[in-house]
Amino acid sequence: MDIRKELADRKSLVDSWLKDAIPNVDPYAEILGKAMEHSLMAGGKRLRPILLYETMKMLGADPEQGKNVALALEMIHTFTLIHDDLPCMDDDDFRRGVPTCHKVFGEDIAVLAGDALVFAAFSLVSQENKTIPAATTVAVIGDIAKAIGPRGVIGGQVVDILSEGKQPTEDLLSYIHNHKTADLIRVSIQCGARLANADSATMDLLEKYATHLGLAFQITDDILDVEGEEDVLGKPVGSDEASGKMTYPALLGMQAAKERAEDEIANAELELSKLVGFDVRFFAGLCDFILRRAY
Amino acid sequence: MDIRKELADRKSLVDSWLKDAIPNVDPYAEILGKAMEHSLMAGGKRLRPILLYETMKMLGADPEQGKNVALALEMIHTFTLIHDDLPCMDDDDFRRGVPTCHKVFGEDIAVLAGDALVFAAFSLVSQENKTIPAATTVAVIGDIAKAIGPRGVIGGQVVDILSEGKQPTEDLLSYIHNHKTADLIRVSIQCGARLANADSATMDLLEKYATHLGLAFQITDDILDVEGEEDVLGKPVGSDEASGKMTYPALLGMQAAKERAEDEIANAELELSKLVGFDVRFFAGLCDFILRRAY
Repeated sequence: MDIRKELADRKSLVDSWLKDAIPNVDPYAEILGKAMEHSLMAGGKRLRPILLYETMKMLGADPEQGKNVALALEMIHTFTLIHDDLPCMDDDDFRRGVPTCHKVFGEDIAVLAGDALVFAAFSLVSQENKTIPAATTVAVIGDIAKAIGPRGVIGGQVVDILSEGKQPTEDLLSYIHNHKTADLIRVSIQCGARLANADSATMDLLEKYATHLGLAFQITDDILDVEGEEDVLGKPVGSDEASGKMTYPALLGMQAAKERAEDEIANAELELSKLVGFDVRFFAGLCDFILRRAY
Repeated sequence: MDIRKELADRKSLVDSWLKDAIPNVDPYAEILGKAMEHSLMAGGKRLRPILLYETMKMLGADPEQGKNVALALEMIHTFTLIHDDLPCMDDDDFRRGVPTCHKVFGEDIAVLAGDALVFAAFSLVSQENKTIPAATTVAVIGDIAKAIGPRGVIGGQVVDILSEGKQPTEDLLSYIHNHKTADLIRVSIQCGARLANADSATMDLLEKYATHLGLAFQITDDILDVEGEEDVLGKPVGSDEASGKMTYPALLGMQAAKERAEDEIANAELELSKLVGFDVRFFAGLCDFILRRAY
């Protein structure tokens, strides 16, 4: 399987879905719509909706039925990026190769565009879908809310901010990576499994796979912030060190950080090998892609 | 009916519920928990959860079954206050008689505390409740997401910000008040009606009542910002004029603004009079309370 081609194909599909799903605004609030669209359509790998899509597909469900949840995950991911980039947080000027939301629309509109994407996301998920039982939709909403909330992505972001400039420790770094990054990757796969009505053993294996994949993803992100190329990444390199971020290269050194990413991917592959009876090629290819990724 | 006593009793109940529902955080993110608690427990009238409670009670449902949704509405209301108060928005130092979230915890933590309350709210609503059908929970989530999202409260806040310092117009002001304030009041009553399984005619009347009540609430808020007493209000007066906010006193003058509030209350009472067969005393008392409120 050519994983890069698969990812590009899926990204095109998600991009076309997203284009039709930019949340509507009233004429007076036109700038809010533009700000949401700016950040939503700035590009990105669309990894989270793709994970949901491919999970449903692998488990034999129709992935088109997961469209609203897939789009909601990308909207929520974009919300986290907009708020993370704010001057009072990471104060980043570029993201996905374009100026960040607050650079274009101002800090006030950026905060509100992030907020609005969250409610637009939950509005999408709650839309009627005759093929998905309401109880499943409620469970998916609960999964997402927990994964992002105070003990999830947002908790991770808080600890990431508090840790700036401090001596890195394994415990703190593991907390940050698990929550700030892996939680959203994990819940994307978890929601796909829920929508496909997976049994609890399958769900459990997939969640473990996703957690290892998510950790590897963040470690390679840390590595790319040191060794990546700006024009491929779409954002400046070296920003983690400049702002004293806690990262694996800072904790362990570059060589050991790379080995840690390889270990996480090996663990992900181990979980995948226990998933008998499904075509796991996409998810195996993804392991390979993440280890070698340049963006 | 002594509406002030009723409101005080209900507020005590909501406060005790809230105390037990402060979202949990992990030890590393302790400050996030403190920031959420600071703003959630800073007081406030608890009007939105009370509206849900009283709607369910009036319609013959057990209001205790609406507890999670009631708390979610207060969490989301608190989220809007935290973000509205940010330096990049209204830059307010006091709210409900105590320093605003960002004054105590910093702007970064305040943004994230607001964000976290939203996800904590949706997590609460999605919790299993055997007496509420999953389809009703999905509908309630959809109602809330739409009422707050880009065409709701957040759209209203965007237009409120954009309108600062501009010549007030009836259209713009009506948009701001309808969305920034009335939408959340309306959806509190709407969710109560949904949870009580109200028919569509009752729902419709209640929504109209709620919209007029919400508009009156915001007009009296504007009036109190001119004529209120700081120690009763818990925030400085005169801030609307200082920041060039679009308000009814600014558009119409004080006397006509007071008449407009009376008109909205008269319209709310008219809708209430069409609601036959229910004990509407609480909702009638509320009309009176809002016209005479000092905080």
